[in-house]
Amino acid sequence: MSSSSTPEVGATFVNIIETAPETQQQVIDILKEGTERVISRMPGFISVTLYAARDGRHVINLATWEHPEDVRNVQTDPESAAFAKRTAQIAEATPGLYTVVGRYR
Amino acid sequence: MSSSSTPEVGATFVNIIETAPETQQQVIDILKEGTERVISRMPGFISVTLYAARDGRHVINLATWEHPEDVRNVQTDPESAAFAKRTAQIAEATPGLYTVVGRYR
Repeated sequence: MSSSSTPEVGATFVNIIETAPETQQQVIDILKEGTERVISRMPGFISVTLYAARDGRHVINLATWEHPEDVRNVQTDPESAAFAKRTAQIAEATPGLYTVVGRYR
Repeated sequence: MSSSSTPEVGATFVNIIETAPETQQQVIDILKEGTERVISRMPGFISVTLYAARDGRHVINLATWEHPEDVRNVQTDPESAAFAKRTAQIAEATPGLYTVVGRYR
C-alpha cells in the first residue's frame, strides 16, 4: 500500500443526493443528461463520476475541475441551475467543495 | 468528453459520514489510521480515497474492492468493527455498496 499527501491540484465538487428507490433512476437520468449537455462542456471540466447506492437511497455526483472558480461558475450558470432545480424537485441535494485528505492503493 | 458504460469490475463501497466542523479532523484521523492499519491489509483491497467537505459537515470514504464479498468480510472483521465504532461515537455514518452508473472525462 502507498499513501499520498501530495498537495491537491484543481477542485473536487461532491453532491450527496438523498433519493428514494422509486426516484433514484430518475435522478441518475437527470444527472447524466446535465453532465452530457452542460457540465462537461464548461470551462475547467476534468471529470464526473456518478455513484448509485444499491439500496436506492443515495446518488453521489463526484466532479473534478481545474480551479475552484470553475465550480462557482457552474453554480451560477443558468443552464446548470435548471438541471439542479429538476433534481431538487424530486430529491434532497447537499453539494459542496471537498479536499482529498487521503489516498491509498 | 467520453462516457463509459463498461460493466463494472469489483465493488465500490462508500461511507457518507456527517461531521461537525469540530469533529471532522478527528474522524479523518480515525479513518486514516483504520485504513493504514486494517483496511488496506485485507483481502481484495484496491483503493481508498478520503474526501473532506470544506464546510466541515461531511467526510466521504470511497473504497474499491475486488469482490462484493471482500466488503462483507471487512464489515464482519472485529478490528475493522472497532474502528467503525470509534467513528460512530462522534459522527453519523451511512455506509453502503454502490454502482458506478456514469463516468465522464
